[in-house]
Amino acid sequence: MAKTQKGPTESRLTFGRRLREERQKQGMTLEDLAERSGITWSYIAQVEVGRRNISVDNMHFLAAGVGMSVGELLRTT
Amino acid sequence: MAKTQKGPTESRLTFGRRLREERQKQGMTLEDLAERSGITWSYIAQVEVGRRNISVDNMHFLAAGVGMSVGELLRTT
Repeated sequence: MAKTQKGPTESRLTFGRRLREERQKQGMTLEDLAERSGITWSYIAQVEVGRRNISVDNMHFLAAGVGMSVGELLRTT
Repeated sequence: MAKTQKGPTESRLTFGRRLREERQKQGMTLEDLAERSGITWSYIAQVEVGRRNISVDNMHFLAAGVGMSVGELLRTT
C-alpha cells in the first residue's frame, strides 16, 4: 500500500514549494504570511521545505494567506 | 485572521466531498479504499464528512487510492 512509503509525500513537498513560490512572488516575508494566516513563521518555514505533515485546515489558512485555494495552489504552474 | 474561523474549513469539506464522489463513481466501498490507501475505513468515513482535520500525507494516500493527485481531487468538477 502507498502508506508504507518512506519520507514526505509528493503532495507535501509540492504544497510547500508552491506556497514558497507564491509567497515570494507576492513579496511577502514569512512574518507577513504568519500575520495573515495566524500560523507562526517558524511553522510556515518548516512547511515550505516539507518538514511538517500539515493538516488540511492549516493548508487552507496558508493558501488563503496568499489569496488562493488549496486546489489552486497545488496546481503545478 | 482566517485561523480564528469556527468549524471545518472549506478545503476540508471539499476534499471529503470530492473523495466520496470519486470513490463512489469508481464503485469502490470504504473497505476497498482502505485496502488501497492503508487508511482504516472508519477514518475515511469521517474524512468524507469533514469530521477529521486530515494531514497532507494522508490526503495524498487517499487521493492516490482513487487514482488522482490531491490537486486533481480538489478541483471542483
